Amino acid sequence: MERRKFIQAAGGAAAAAVATSATAEALPTLTWRMASSFPKSLDTLFGGAEFFAQRVSELTQGKFTIRAFPAGEIVPAFQVLDAVQNGTIEMGHTPLYIYFGKDPTFTFDTCGPFGMSSRQQTAWYTAGGGREIFMEFLKSYGITTLPCGNTGCQMGGWFRKEIKSLEDMAGLKMRVGGFGGRILQKLGVVPQQIPAGDIYPSLEKGTIDAAEFVGPYDDEKLGFDRVAPYYYTPGWWETGSHLSLIIGNKQWNDLPPLYRAALTAASYEAHVMVQAKYDVRNPQALARLIKRGVKLRPFPMDVMKASLKAAKEVMAEEASKNANFKKIYDHYTNFQDQQNKWYSVAEQRMQNFQIAALNAREKKE
Amino acid sequence: MERRKFIQAAGGAAAAAVATSATAEALPTLTWRMASSFPKSLDTLFGGAEFFAQRVSELTQGKFTIRAFPAGEIVPAFQVLDAVQNGTIEMGHTPLYIYFGKDPTFTFDTCGPFGMSSRQQTAWYTAGGGREIFMEFLKSYGITTLPCGNTGCQMGGWFRKEIKSLEDMAGLKMRVGGFGGRILQKLGVVPQQIPAGDIYPSLEKGTIDAAEFVGPYDDEKLGFDRVAPYYYTPGWWETGSHLSLIIGNKQWNDLPPLYRAALTAASYEAHVMVQAKYDVRNPQALARLIKRGVKLRPFPMDVMKASLKAAKEVMAEEASKNANFKKIYDHYTNFQDQQNKWYSVAEQRMQNFQIAALNAREKKE
Repeated sequence: MERRKFIQAAGGAAAAAVATSATAEALPTLTWRMASSFPKSLDTLFGGAEFFAQRVSELTQGKFTIRAFPAGEIVPAFQVLDAVQNGTIEMGHTPLYIYFGKDPTFTFDTCGPFGMSSRQQTAWYTAGGGREIFMEFLKSYGITTLPCGNTGCQMGGWFRKEIKSLEDMAGLKMRVGGFGGRILQKLGVVPQQIPAGDIYPSLEKGTIDAAEFVGPYDDEKLGFDRVAPYYYTPGWWETGSHLSLIIGNKQWNDLPPLYRAALTAASYEAHVMVQAKYDVRNPQALARLIKRGVKLRPFPMDVMKASLKAAKEVMAEEASKNANFKKIYDHYTNFQDQQNKWYSVAEQRMQNFQIAALNAREKKE
Repeated sequence: MERRKFIQAAGGAAAAAVATSATAEALPTLTWRMASSFPKSLDTLFGGAEFFAQRVSELTQGKFTIRAFPAGEIVPAFQVLDAVQNGTIEMGHTPLYIYFGKDPTFTFDTCGPFGMSSRQQTAWYTAGGGREIFMEFLKSYGITTLPCGNTGCQMGGWFRKEIKSLEDMAGLKMRVGGFGGRILQKLGVVPQQIPAGDIYPSLEKGTIDAAEFVGPYDDEKLGFDRVAPYYYTPGWWETGSHLSLIIGNKQWNDLPPLYRAALTAASYEAHVMVQAKYDVRNPQALARLIKRGVKLRPFPMDVMKASLKAAKEVMAEEASKNANFKKIYDHYTNFQDQQNKWYSVAEQRMQNFQIAALNAREKKE
C-alpha cells in the first residue's frame, strides 16, 4: 500500500514536471499598459483596443493582462509613441500619422492623401510588402506594429456655408491637420489645429468656418450639424485610415512565442471588428443626420481636382528632401495604382452597377 | 541543509501543482482533421486553411494540431459538410453555397447573386447580425462557422466568342453552378456543372462555349486564355465570396475556452490573409493575362440588367417557398442596401475619383 502510494505520487510528480516544462514555464504572468490616442467616446476605436486586450487574456488563460487607457489618462493622445519609446508604457493604440511632425513618413502607416481604401491598405500592409518596408523605417524608433482597425473612407467635414466652387475655399478657416492641412493651404484654406472638444464652440462662434473629424457615427455625437449644416464628402485626406498597435521592440522580443502569436492573432481579429463596426454604425448615423436636416454635399469637382494636384505637389516636395518618405511613397503609390487598375475591372464596376440599380429602384418607389 | 533542500523541493512541487491546475489540465492534446473543398492548386484558399492551422498550433503550444487535407483526400469537395455532420472529420473549410442543393439558404453565408462586396459581407457577418441569423438556420445541421477568407469580386468567366448583346447569350453552354446558373438560364444560357479539371478540355473541344471559375490568379493557372480569349467582367454571381470554417457543434462545445478563442482569433487572421493575398496576386495575374493577349470585356449593359432582373425573380421565387431563405434574404438585402447608400456617399465616390484620375494620368503618359 505504501509502495503503491509512493509510485502514484512519483508518477504524479513526473507528470507535473513534464507539464510544467511544456506549459507553465512558457506562460509568465504579465501585466501591460496600453495607452490609446482615443478617448472612450470614440467607442469604435477605443472599443477595438479593449476587444483586443480581452482576446489576448482569453488566449493566455488570463496570464497576459493588457489594460487599455483612454487618451490623457497616462499620456496625452499625441504622446503615445514617445511613451512606448521611452518605456513608460509597453504598448499603444494610435494612428501613426499623428507623429507627422517627427517625420511625415509616418503618414503611410495610416493613410496617404488620395490614398488607399481600407481593404487596399490592409492588403498592402499584410501581403503587399507594406509592413516590411515600414518596419525598416521604424527600426530607429525601436517599435513593432500590428494592425488594429480602420475607419474606412472618412467624410470631408462640416461647413457653415455651402462650397459652390474652388473660389469658396479661399480664406476658409478649417480645422484639419497633417497633410490634409498642408494641401488645403495651397487652395487658400487656413488650416487650424483644434482638439476634438473645442471644435463645436469654435464652429458655433464662427472662430472657424469648417472642421473635419471622422465619419457620421463619430461626428454625430459631437453635434456639429447644429452649428455647421453642410456635410461634405469625401474626406480625401483620409481615404481609409489604418490604426496601429505599437509595442517596444525589447518588450516584443522578450515575449514567449505564444504571447507574440496571441498579440498578432488578436490584433487581426480586432482589426476586422473595428472596420465592421464602423460599417454597421456609419450608415445608421448618416440616415439619422439626414433626417435631422443635414445638407449632404459632394465637394465640387474643381475642388477635388485642385486638391489632387496640390496633394501631388506636396508629396513630391516631401519626397525630394526625405529618402525614407520617397521610398515608402513610391512603394505605396505603385501598389495603389495596381490595386485601382484591378478594382476598375471587377470590384468597382460591380459596386457601381449595384449602387446605380439601388438609386433607380428608389426613384421608382 | 537537508531541511532546506526539502523546503525547496516542496516549494517546487507546490508551484508545479498550481501551474498544472492552471494550465496543463486546460490544455488537452488534440488532433483534428480538416477537409477542404479546395485542391492544393487553389493555393490562396488552401493556403488560408494551412495558415489557420499553423496559427492554432502556435496559440496552443503545439497541443492542438489541425491538419488540412485538400479536396478528395478524405472526402470529395462537395461532401465536406456531410463529413463534418456525421463526425468523419472534426472540421472543414468550404464555401457553404455549394450545399445549395440541400437548401439554397446556404448561399448567403458565401455570397448572394448581385450580392455584397467582401468588406460588406464581413461587416454583415461580424457586426451586422449576419452570423447570428445564419447560426439559427445552421442549428439543424449541428455545425458552427467561423470566417476564413474571401475571394473579392470574381470575374465573369471565359468565352470563346465575343458577347455583343443579350441575344448572344441565348443557347450558350456555360460552366456555371448554383444561383448563377439558374439565373442565367432565364437569359437562355444552358448551365453546365463541370469539375475544375475538365473545364479546359471542354472549352478546347467546344463542348461548352464559356466557363466561369474564380479570378485572374486562379484562372491563369488553368490556361483558359489559350482556348477562350474573351475574359468577361464582373462575376455578378460572386461579388465577394466568403469562405467558412465549419465545426461540429459537439466538437466545438467540448473544447476548453482557450481553444475556442484560438480557433476564433486564428480564423479572423486567416480571413484577412486570404483576401489580402488575392488582392496582391490578382492584379499581377491580370497584367500577365492582358500581356498575353486576353481580350478583357465588360458584360454589355443589357446583359447586366437582364441578369439583375432575372436574379430578383429567382430569389423571389425561392423566398416564396422557403421561410428560412426569405428571412435571411430580407436581412441580407436590407443590410446591403444600407451599405450601398453609405458607400455611394464616401467610399465608392472616393475610389471612382481615384480610378478616373489614374485613367486620365495613364492616357497622358
